Amino acid sequence: RYLDAGTSGGIWGLERGYCLMIGGDQSSAQRLDPIFAALAPGPGDIPKTPGREGMKSTAELGYLYCGLSGAGHFVKMIHNGIEYGLMQAYAEGFDILRGANSDNLPAGLSYDLNVADIAELWRRGSVVSSWLLDLTATALASDRQLDGYSGFVEDSGEGRWTIQAALEEGVSAEVLSVALYTRFRSRQEHTFAEKILSAMRKGFGGHVERPPAVKMKQGL
Amino acid sequence: RYLDAGTSGGIWGLERGYCLMIGGDQSSAQRLDPIFAALAPGPGDIPKTPGREGMKSTAELGYLYCGLSGAGHFVKMIHNGIEYGLMQAYAEGFDILRGANSDNLPAGLSYDLNVADIAELWRRGSVVSSWLLDLTATALASDRQLDGYSGFVEDSGEGRWTIQAALEEGVSAEVLSVALYTRFRSRQEHTFAEKILSAMRKGFGGHVERPPAVKMKQGL
Amino acid sequence: RYLDAGTSGGIWGLERGYCLMIGGDQSSAQRLDPIFAALAPGPGDIPKTPGREGMKSTAELGYLYCGLSGAGHFVKMIHNGIEYGLMQAYAEGFDILRGANSDNLPAGLSYDLNVADIAELWRRGSVVSSWLLDLTATALASDRQLDGYSGFVEDSGEGRWTIQAALEEGVSAEVLSVALYTRFRSRQEHTFAEKILSAMRKGFGGHVERPPAVKMKQGL
Amino acid sequence: RYLDAGTSGGIWGLERGYCLMIGGDQSSAQRLDPIFAALAPGPGDIPKTPGREGMKSTAELGYLYCGLSGAGHFVKMIHNGIEYGLMQAYAEGFDILRGANSDNLPAGLSYDLNVADIAELWRRGSVVSSWLLDLTATALASDRQLDGYSGFVEDSGEGRWTIQAALEEGVSAEVLSVALYTRFRSRQEHTFAEKILSAMRKGFGGHVERPPAVKMKQGL
Repeated sequence: RYLDAGTSGGIWGLERGYCLMIGGDQSSAQRLDPIFAALAPGPGDIPKTPGREGMKSTAELGYLYCGLSGAGHFVKMIHNGIEYGLMQAYAEGFDILRGANSDNLPAGLSYDLNVADIAELWRRGSVVSSWLLDLTATALASDRQLDGYSGFVEDSGEGRWTIQAALEEGVSAEVLSVALYTRFRSRQEHTFAEKILSAMRKGFGGHVERPPAVKMKQGL
Repeated sequence: RYLDAGTSGGIWGLERGYCLMIGGDQSSAQRLDPIFAALAPGPGDIPKTPGREGMKSTAELGYLYCGLSGAGHFVKMIHNGIEYGLMQAYAEGFDILRGANSDNLPAGLSYDLNVADIAELWRRGSVVSSWLLDLTATALASDRQLDGYSGFVEDSGEGRWTIQAALEEGVSAEVLSVALYTRFRSRQEHTFAEKILSAMRKGFGGHVERPPAVKMKQGL
Repeated sequence: RYLDAGTSGGIWGLERGYCLMIGGDQSSAQRLDPIFAALAPGPGDIPKTPGREGMKSTAELGYLYCGLSGAGHFVKMIHNGIEYGLMQAYAEGFDILRGANSDNLPAGLSYDLNVADIAELWRRGSVVSSWLLDLTATALASDRQLDGYSGFVEDSGEGRWTIQAALEEGVSAEVLSVALYTRFRSRQEHTFAEKILSAMRKGFGGHVERPPAVKMKQGL
Repeated sequence: RYLDAGTSGGIWGLERGYCLMIGGDQSSAQRLDPIFAALAPGPGDIPKTPGREGMKSTAELGYLYCGLSGAGHFVKMIHNGIEYGLMQAYAEGFDILRGANSDNLPAGLSYDLNVADIAELWRRGSVVSSWLLDLTATALASDRQLDGYSGFVEDSGEGRWTIQAALEEGVSAEVLSVALYTRFRSRQEHTFAEKILSAMRKGFGGHVERPPAVKMKQGL
């Protein structure tokens, strides 16, 4: 007999806590409950959610029996799908902040923004505060242009499975899908799709594509 | 002389802290610095970002001079654009979790998940932990099916301005755009676009569209 | 031994022609070639593609052996995935044309456009001319507001399989995915995702969502 | 007094016909009607749209007075927005067809498809037949891998204006937006957004991104 148990918390789990998502035969999960309770980080100093005062659930201890076989991995998978979407939302936002620095913009639409300070500022009570933002602020603190990163972004499969689940259920997953696709795109120099576009443009308009010359302010 | 100062923190700012994004003439902002310092929530007990030890910036106090006139509102605007994307990522993920409960799924792909407990669980050290997740867990704790919400979702304009900035800069904003469009869509019974699709389908395939009959498990 | 043979042309195949996409064992397909040649519509009066003068292929006769078992259905499936994307592109464009008619727009951004005439006009040599546009022009000619259509849009499965293929291959399919999701969305009154958004907005901002009141010009 | 007159038909207008979209003062447009009638390609041999038998409109002659000043350019702009969406739908579909050729796929999911023949086949009565498909078939006929194209794709501004119109109207434009964004993306080696993703992934998971090694079958 097997149980499936996904976990989230990354390499910081020991310090920050982590959570366990468990699936399988309920009696087996029940029998192993002492092990999960021992492994789980416990309530820590995370504020109690209003409305859960009377509820009995191990969720607040950091582990949860989610359902029959596969349910634990399913929940972990959706967690990662959400993660991709969250990451892409921050990524686009910071790209637009940085883009405001372009010399190609009309006067009056161009700013000289310090993205590292802005990431730090948003950690203070803003609606977008999160652990992913904390990590972004840390990365920008030491490398404001992120020159140390290639921008080649892997996906470890859970994002794809999330979309497959959405397709099977008939649930719209626009954000989670396009977040995944930007990763696919990041790993190629040019796609065949883009060459098809170039070919069509040459076909109907005689357009011949040329590479760009974008100048960014030194200050960035 | 005017300064622009966006703020984020919502109706919880007094309790959770908030942050101020300031734009305008630098000397004017400098002169008002004591006021901003007095208004801002200060460092609180938010952990110091590694790598910022030697840096001098008011960002850690909860306010920041972002640049010339408009820069404060610009940064606040992008903040809201990101917010839309983050919210939509969670929303889609929870919709897929809930969708796993459908009786229309093939056996073996259907689970009976407790979305309220899962939201609570993910507050424990997971990669998707955030204030928006805390709020989601609170809402689900008292109304697991969210029957008290219409699903009619306003947008207050900043999401649109974020996309306009992306267009001007030539920066891709897939997630932020589709997050905004789901709000547009949520406010209509049916779009003209959908009727165009129906009309085409009837045209080429003789398809006549019928309303659906989806059954969900009682347990949800 | 089986062959798979997808076809496209809809209910107009007898009149407009259609095409056959064949997969399976090559020798079997070869043996049945006379049948496919007899069924296929032949070259008709479709202009010869420049550059194919010397090529030998049955493609110009309206049938094609695409590859091993499943290849015919695979190609037909991608055809339908593309179809969804094309349809959604027209649908959004006509929705924006119609939207220009809204009284909510600032003066100078509002037009009083005749979408039926515009669809007809674009059939004349424009870059967007296609059979799907012809069908749209036909539908709009007799029902300019498309009141006879519910806007509830089915999908017959091929769009989903197309996305699954893209996921397996690691190929970006933004347009084909969101085109499919708008169909999913069209079949629901409100999604759980939208209720999550409403719940979050109430949580951080005290926003209570209200239904809209959009007025359109009578003329539309 | 000025009129605005957009046109579509590309460099093939003389041969294939083209259409004129006119805006401005109605009496001025009326006065110039003989000029537009002389310039326009006329009905040609394009089949009459069913349902338009009794209608009086210059649309069937290839020109149309669309409305007050700006209406002609507005309609032309939306035309181009649609064009971007159509092109991207084909581009993604052909990319998925080509991707089926990857050696990285599990056995049984890999085909050896001839994309040039498939493009030609679909010109025969299929639902996706269009002029853009004709152009794609022409390009693939002489360069099946499109090695002669960089995949660097310009946008000439109308796609951006289309999205701005959608934003002002509150109309969803998912497909038209992401179609535009793939062009933005095609013109960069790596985006700052992608580097943000890499930085976050290193932050929470210790992931260090590496470039890929994808092998394609020689046959493609």
